[in-house]
Amino acid sequence: MKRILVAVIVSALSVGAVQAQDTDRIPSKGFAVDSAEGHFHPYEFTRHAIGDNDILIETMYAGICHSDLHAAWDEHQSHGIAGIYPMVPGHEIAGRVVKVGKNVTNFKVGDYAGVGCMVNSCGHCTFCEMDKEQFCENGTTFTYNSIDRYHDNEPAMGGYSNNIVVSEAFAIKIPENADMKRVAPLLCAGVTTWSPIHFSKVKKGDNVAVAGYGGLGHMAVQYLVALGADVTIFDITEEKRADAFRMGAKRYVNVNNAEDMKGHNNSFDFIISTIPANYSPLVYARMLKYGKGEMAIVGLPETATVNVADLALGGAANRKIYGSLIGGIKETQEMIDYSVAHHIYPEVEIINAEAAEIDKAYRNVQDGKVKFRYVIDMSTLK
Amino acid sequence: MKRILVAVIVSALSVGAVQAQDTDRIPSKGFAVDSAEGHFHPYEFTRHAIGDNDILIETMYAGICHSDLHAAWDEHQSHGIAGIYPMVPGHEIAGRVVKVGKNVTNFKVGDYAGVGCMVNSCGHCTFCEMDKEQFCENGTTFTYNSIDRYHDNEPAMGGYSNNIVVSEAFAIKIPENADMKRVAPLLCAGVTTWSPIHFSKVKKGDNVAVAGYGGLGHMAVQYLVALGADVTIFDITEEKRADAFRMGAKRYVNVNNAEDMKGHNNSFDFIISTIPANYSPLVYARMLKYGKGEMAIVGLPETATVNVADLALGGAANRKIYGSLIGGIKETQEMIDYSVAHHIYPEVEIINAEAAEIDKAYRNVQDGKVKFRYVIDMSTLK
Repeated sequence: MKRILVAVIVSALSVGAVQAQDTDRIPSKGFAVDSAEGHFHPYEFTRHAIGDNDILIETMYAGICHSDLHAAWDEHQSHGIAGIYPMVPGHEIAGRVVKVGKNVTNFKVGDYAGVGCMVNSCGHCTFCEMDKEQFCENGTTFTYNSIDRYHDNEPAMGGYSNNIVVSEAFAIKIPENADMKRVAPLLCAGVTTWSPIHFSKVKKGDNVAVAGYGGLGHMAVQYLVALGADVTIFDITEEKRADAFRMGAKRYVNVNNAEDMKGHNNSFDFIISTIPANYSPLVYARMLKYGKGEMAIVGLPETATVNVADLALGGAANRKIYGSLIGGIKETQEMIDYSVAHHIYPEVEIINAEAAEIDKAYRNVQDGKVKFRYVIDMSTLK
Repeated sequence: MKRILVAVIVSALSVGAVQAQDTDRIPSKGFAVDSAEGHFHPYEFTRHAIGDNDILIETMYAGICHSDLHAAWDEHQSHGIAGIYPMVPGHEIAGRVVKVGKNVTNFKVGDYAGVGCMVNSCGHCTFCEMDKEQFCENGTTFTYNSIDRYHDNEPAMGGYSNNIVVSEAFAIKIPENADMKRVAPLLCAGVTTWSPIHFSKVKKGDNVAVAGYGGLGHMAVQYLVALGADVTIFDITEEKRADAFRMGAKRYVNVNNAEDMKGHNNSFDFIISTIPANYSPLVYARMLKYGKGEMAIVGLPETATVNVADLALGGAANRKIYGSLIGGIKETQEMIDYSVAHHIYPEVEIINAEAAEIDKAYRNVQDGKVKFRYVIDMSTLK
């Protein structure tokens, strides 16, 4: 993290210069919403100048994550996260480096690079020191809907745009043999599921479950299958049953089928819940093995709650529950390297960089009608 | 558990004989409530006959647990636990064996014996096989407010009474050198805190916290201090500060003092929450060390909830939470042996076996005015 600390100081020193010379700012264009009820529209703006430790990435692909909907529609207000508009969402960004600052060592022009959920942090707090920049005590700068306090104090703008400027310490190296069309969602969906799977030390032969088989869920399934775990998928639809088996799952449970839901209590070593809508976490907690199982929460519905008395009295005692939030830069890089090496990618539907297509994709994500991830092909931007 | 299985079969075989000869039933007297709003009154009843594997215990002392209030006042309806009236509460029972069935091997007349929260279970299910009879898949018979389906199918009656009949497999051996006045609350408060402390493998030098410093909390403090952990206590009152340090705690935090509440985030290896009233579990989850800490919930308020999105977004990611419910018979025996050997006991206020005294004790427990446990001296029963 010393490297980042130096980068922050250098960037901080250069802010004055950048602010003094607005001509150094980088013109960018993409798509924004203006309010929680708004639709996407073409939007032109500028990004902070390329500091000595920064790189400029030309966006090739940008994934659409359910979190983008939560943010664009201002659904995390109860967590003190208020929508900043106009908002250019997008935190699954894959592209090519087109310019590098003079101190950049890890990237050169022409390299593939990715940006995930964050673009800066203090670099020296407890969490930054442990490579968990997403919990920076002095404030992580997230990729959008976040004030970029380490640069220009302006709202950061995300990946539904033709480029992004980022410190090299927050850029992910993407191997040259990566399938770039499909790599973008790894930056969020990949690491968000990868991180708790490894935190919980899932291993070969474990009996595990994935609750919610969407963008996050289908990445979790692939990582778990690759580890040699027996995977059961819980989802609300019949339509993805064939996909489940094709991806290596052993069982597929339609949670709307009461018979299918029987017989799972006390059986799983690990459950990852990616469910983005209201549900009963207790139902899944009971399915964990007594005294061993643990459940990672990565889906973030604002409504789902657990009564603490239920945890003891409700048939779920001695099963551990925890939340997990994306992953640090170091583990994101590990996840990318592993995913590309093992050919683990999201299944994507490529859409054009047009406002109406993004609007439509949002409605389909909300309605659970996507298999499994929309990705915007930014080369189609007009 | 084979021993229990045999006991159950033998008991089941003897039910016919017992029912045929009501004169074998054991007369008992104590105190009951007749409704959730009722007051205690003297109450006479009979208990099932002493089967070949059963023992008859003359009650010397009976503890008053906050769970007794929840049960008597019918506060666990949302968990499908409905009050069965008339109800004789009491699941912290210490006494002396006065009669033994002919197959009893572990007890003889004159021995000290204890009964905790349960008096029977099937003996052969997954949970009974792992010595966790409180989760019996075929139905634990709890010490009261529970139908005794392994005997007479009548409501079991608890410890606020002059005696109890119980299978020796569910009786706890109490060493002869035990301080009997103070041993009763160990049967619930002791094992309820002992169990998660060992489940979470708390060890010497760990930084730990006890939230709620009452009947359960003060037992947790003593076990944690005995293990060599650094203990911080969180409670709502100033009155117990001196007690906290006397019991070996390093820090005492009045949670109503906002300044005192600062600076604890990301600092504890283990927290046990014994809080019986509404509170924010998230506040304590944040205090757990990132990636290491875990919180055991043993206090059972019906109202306290955790939003699952908070677990990830609310500053508590990668901290594990679980509920814990009393303990199995095997670990209850281990806890009693350890507690007596290490002179670890609850601090008790002895009250007389009078209905008005029990009523008053309930009000004081509800109002947090007890230090730390009321115990009824059953020898004073008229």
